[in-house]
Amino acid sequence: MISVGVVGGAGYIGGELLRILSGHPEVDITAVTSARLAGRRVDGSHPNLRGRVDLTYVAPERLPECDVLFLTGSMGTDADQRHAMVARAKHVYDLSPDLRLTDPDRYREFYGGHPAPELLGTATRGLPEADRAALRTADSVSVPGCMATAAILALRPLAVAGLLAPRVTVDGRVGSSGSGASAGEMNLHAERSGVLRVFAPLNHRHQAEIAQATGLDVRMTATGVDAVRGVQVLCRATASRDLTEADIRAAYRAAYAAEPFVRVVTYKRGNYRLPEPKILIGSNYCDVGFALDPDDGQLLLVGALDNLVKGGAGNAVQCLNIRMGWDESLGLDFPGLHPA
Amino acid sequence: MISVGVVGGAGYIGGELLRILSGHPEVDITAVTSARLAGRRVDGSHPNLRGRVDLTYVAPERLPECDVLFLTGSMGTDADQRHAMVARAKHVYDLSPDLRLTDPDRYREFYGGHPAPELLGTATRGLPEADRAALRTADSVSVPGCMATAAILALRPLAVAGLLAPRVTVDGRVGSSGSGASAGEMNLHAERSGVLRVFAPLNHRHQAEIAQATGLDVRMTATGVDAVRGVQVLCRATASRDLTEADIRAAYRAAYAAEPFVRVVTYKRGNYRLPEPKILIGSNYCDVGFALDPDDGQLLLVGALDNLVKGGAGNAVQCLNIRMGWDESLGLDFPGLHPA
Amino acid sequence: MISVGVVGGAGYIGGELLRILSGHPEVDITAVTSARLAGRRVDGSHPNLRGRVDLTYVAPERLPECDVLFLTGSMGTDADQRHAMVARAKHVYDLSPDLRLTDPDRYREFYGGHPAPELLGTATRGLPEADRAALRTADSVSVPGCMATAAILALRPLAVAGLLAPRVTVDGRVGSSGSGASAGEMNLHAERSGVLRVFAPLNHRHQAEIAQATGLDVRMTATGVDAVRGVQVLCRATASRDLTEADIRAAYRAAYAAEPFVRVVTYKRGNYRLPEPKILIGSNYCDVGFALDPDDGQLLLVGALDNLVKGGAGNAVQCLNIRMGWDESLGLDFPGLHPA
Amino acid sequence: MISVGVVGGAGYIGGELLRILSGHPEVDITAVTSARLAGRRVDGSHPNLRGRVDLTYVAPERLPECDVLFLTGSMGTDADQRHAMVARAKHVYDLSPDLRLTDPDRYREFYGGHPAPELLGTATRGLPEADRAALRTADSVSVPGCMATAAILALRPLAVAGLLAPRVTVDGRVGSSGSGASAGEMNLHAERSGVLRVFAPLNHRHQAEIAQATGLDVRMTATGVDAVRGVQVLCRATASRDLTEADIRAAYRAAYAAEPFVRVVTYKRGNYRLPEPKILIGSNYCDVGFALDPDDGQLLLVGALDNLVKGGAGNAVQCLNIRMGWDESLGLDFPGLHPA
Repeated sequence: MISVGVVGGAGYIGGELLRILSGHPEVDITAVTSARLAGRRVDGSHPNLRGRVDLTYVAPERLPECDVLFLTGSMGTDADQRHAMVARAKHVYDLSPDLRLTDPDRYREFYGGHPAPELLGTATRGLPEADRAALRTADSVSVPGCMATAAILALRPLAVAGLLAPRVTVDGRVGSSGSGASAGEMNLHAERSGVLRVFAPLNHRHQAEIAQATGLDVRMTATGVDAVRGVQVLCRATASRDLTEADIRAAYRAAYAAEPFVRVVTYKRGNYRLPEPKILIGSNYCDVGFALDPDDGQLLLVGALDNLVKGGAGNAVQCLNIRMGWDESLGLDFPGLHPA
Repeated sequence: MISVGVVGGAGYIGGELLRILSGHPEVDITAVTSARLAGRRVDGSHPNLRGRVDLTYVAPERLPECDVLFLTGSMGTDADQRHAMVARAKHVYDLSPDLRLTDPDRYREFYGGHPAPELLGTATRGLPEADRAALRTADSVSVPGCMATAAILALRPLAVAGLLAPRVTVDGRVGSSGSGASAGEMNLHAERSGVLRVFAPLNHRHQAEIAQATGLDVRMTATGVDAVRGVQVLCRATASRDLTEADIRAAYRAAYAAEPFVRVVTYKRGNYRLPEPKILIGSNYCDVGFALDPDDGQLLLVGALDNLVKGGAGNAVQCLNIRMGWDESLGLDFPGLHPA
Repeated sequence: MISVGVVGGAGYIGGELLRILSGHPEVDITAVTSARLAGRRVDGSHPNLRGRVDLTYVAPERLPECDVLFLTGSMGTDADQRHAMVARAKHVYDLSPDLRLTDPDRYREFYGGHPAPELLGTATRGLPEADRAALRTADSVSVPGCMATAAILALRPLAVAGLLAPRVTVDGRVGSSGSGASAGEMNLHAERSGVLRVFAPLNHRHQAEIAQATGLDVRMTATGVDAVRGVQVLCRATASRDLTEADIRAAYRAAYAAEPFVRVVTYKRGNYRLPEPKILIGSNYCDVGFALDPDDGQLLLVGALDNLVKGGAGNAVQCLNIRMGWDESLGLDFPGLHPA
Repeated sequence: MISVGVVGGAGYIGGELLRILSGHPEVDITAVTSARLAGRRVDGSHPNLRGRVDLTYVAPERLPECDVLFLTGSMGTDADQRHAMVARAKHVYDLSPDLRLTDPDRYREFYGGHPAPELLGTATRGLPEADRAALRTADSVSVPGCMATAAILALRPLAVAGLLAPRVTVDGRVGSSGSGASAGEMNLHAERSGVLRVFAPLNHRHQAEIAQATGLDVRMTATGVDAVRGVQVLCRATASRDLTEADIRAAYRAAYAAEPFVRVVTYKRGNYRLPEPKILIGSNYCDVGFALDPDDGQLLLVGALDNLVKGGAGNAVQCLNIRMGWDESLGLDFPGLHPA
């Protein structure tokens, strides 16, 4: 058994890691840190794990050595703390935005100053569908953002195949769990219920990550919707040449035919014709789909996923499975519910 | 025009008072206090009032004299502040629980020590359907709690007519706005969305108020549901003698035939057979209805209302309308929406 | 008093007309038709109107003469029935899509064959902010679509002022009431709850209407969201020249400073910085707002409204108020709720 | 591998059976029937199973022989069809209400005439926590109703221990999936969203089932709430003698200490102090909890579960696991999500 630690385990990504890891046959959860809840039971903040995990939070500075570490929060301004932590494990999976951008100027533009800019570019991106080969040997992995993951998976096969004109817009929609477990007044139920909150009208942070991954010229908007979990991205693009639906299907098939967690969803009838997060909650799937207007080459590419699973914890565990040579779907086999 | 002040205007009850009063033809909103937001625009925290009110919060200690004062918050431990405030107005409508119970022992049991117990019993209860005569001359009014209002209106006509055995249970359901605008982590959208949270499994505070108003032996449970507004109470009772549906209708009719804001809702078909808060949001109605099993005399009495309107701000304005001799529905004519 | 008839009164737009008209001081509801419910009480299908209207549905063929007629449904394939109906009233407000497009080719492209193509172009568009002068004398009015109204109001002042490059995309989001009261399996609660359903990935019908009204080259996508009411449109545009926020504000102000039902909503802080349907439910407002990236001239223009009010019934009544020379806000003064 | 057939696979219980069985290592889904969708792909109506099952619906009369049959729908008036079906399998799990009541008079009172009353009493009840011994050999199993299961699991240990006075009330709350996939207008999203619909004010059908299982004198009310999945029951009871919380815990512990799918949830702090369906969606848990007023012996017993899992499909599979001597949790190990 591989020993695993979760740093920042009281948050929503932390909880989801614990749910997945507690059902994973090859790992043993050795430590879960929380500065605020040290000494309290883990299932006190993650009630779905009652009877499933028997763990108590430890203070971050008391994190023991373990084989694998999952970091859920940003290092903030304290890079030393991160250094101390990652020194305690061989394999580190970082779910924060800290290492997602490789270009320091880009990082500064979207996030401000970085506490340890020398780290930028040192981690392997954790997107199995693009980075599987590198992930087999990577010991420092940076897991992409939730909306970025959906957009990259929807755009990248077509971008790589040269089928898209460079300019693309991305309209991201995300549920309230994306704001984390300690969010303030703006996430009160009475304020957040029923919203279509355009919290990033232009240049959402994930824009830089999608551009970096696809080489496209991306403009991104983001809206908070009335859901707890779920991400959907609508990517508007234009074909770079005459295209048919068959061309697009072929490009997706070439990229994803063997992928365990990407499905191409483009149906002519039914209630679920294009990717819909509603049926993905709890699962590690990212569904991608498209619509094409053959007359003028306009394209809508749609991606959907659960922001805490394929958009975070599940994707990280998939990366670990690859690194360890395990079946890639260990711990990740829940298919999602319908209806729910 | 009558000048009106709202103390604690930044909360949800405060905002609802402002919505109603800003559309009321006989009043002028003179001052709105907020300790936290003094100097800020009122429509900054109540965005539905943009273009409707042009007001700035003042600190509580700078409250000017006005004809009428609405108090939205409890006096907490500082009774002097309350005394200072109510001295500045002739008519005071208190929407807090401070003066709802008249018996100090009862108050202590349900709320703890009272900061000014000598005030208990000095205010007139603000329930027009029961207290209209007194409200015509009352200058200090205590507005009942939201779930209490629904339960009292459902139970009282039958209790007064002697149709009920003494023992009654009340199952209250309430939306998240009942927890106020400054609520904490337990009201985060991700935690509160989709809940059936039994936050008061036994002896909810409104139990004392319902008992006081009906003379019944009440047991009350309360559940937070996934709605922002809305209260529904299910009251289980037993007939004190052989009863027919006609008997119950007659008792309700005797009490409510002339009431502008109580409707008896007991239909045999359709989607809205019994009182349903969904269609009452924004309105000042309290719908009441019932079901009777003639074989064994078991009764279900149902009440529904919008907790911020008939369960708070609207009810208070109705009391003011009565006191001033105005049309009782001034400012309160919104019927509610279907569907919504 | 003006007598008014509502054709197709059992649907959601019909119900909303009845809600508004029943609180309108200058009109008298003479007749409400429903082929399916003839003989049944109106408040049986619109329970929010219990105690407010005392009306019974009549069969469409028994519609009496009235001064004003509101048509809520498409004429389908039977243009004669429409002719017979409109002959019974002097003023006709058509809320269906039948007469929204003036170009028969466009109509055919987006809707298929028209049952009475000679009628296209004969009605005055019912958008007060653009058409007030014409509406003062128009007797046949075609009320725009819900998402089209929001997009036109967000785009038109800037388009008219020549501030926008021609190519614009519109991302519309709409609640389930937009699908009507007789919708099928796809609108079951279990299927529709929690969705982000991209029901029109490209070329939504309202695209043609927005293009016609703004002269822009529009591409429109539409998504059904988990709300009963509410429309929000996100319009992506590019400035045609160097622009500042002040330029855009000036253009909006020139168009809307005197408008009773359009607010420009672009705030730097708070939870409601851009137009949000959540706080507009039940109101006749259309809020518009924007974000500008001055570096590259990209613009996000946002519009929001209640699809059944400013996106339908309320807008129609506003047109009627203009035609009759009444205060434009008669029957339409509800400000919306916060929170709700 | 055991071969399994699902009769009525297009409904919500059918879909849930397919989700669970498709992840079950010991069974092979041989046939799924649907009269309406014969010849269509199963994942067309259960989109969460895309890439998981490769099955096509067959007409009911073409059901092949299989080892195990799950029946999801009532036999209606055609008992012969049922006889023909069950003849094709050795083991039959009936999820309809047909065989839940053993007393024909009771059945008639709550459901009307039975098409094959001679079958009443012939099936073993499928409640593992009460019936495990019988289920090890039973070949005809009747799975209890969703709300009944929650109530029986909350009440039965205390009733069996003689701790309850006979009279109990049950207040059931249930999501829209309980109404099935082919429900009508009353389940339209616009009508069902946000409801607190008291659809059974007295004597809900599950009342008979709970009484039969506990020996108590039950009165049951049911409300549809704004959720797709989830059941919660609030059972009001009175202690038959002086009781402490420890007594109740002891009774629950005696019943459930070794149960894999029942947790006793009664906490003093946190957001999930009592059983809450929100965190049980997709899981096979039934959480039970309680509150006691030691002064007067009033008790609130709370049960919660996912109506399609422990309240239906999951419970049926648990019964099958028992019958086959497999690990009882095969296919049923999903813990539920938090938040969601």
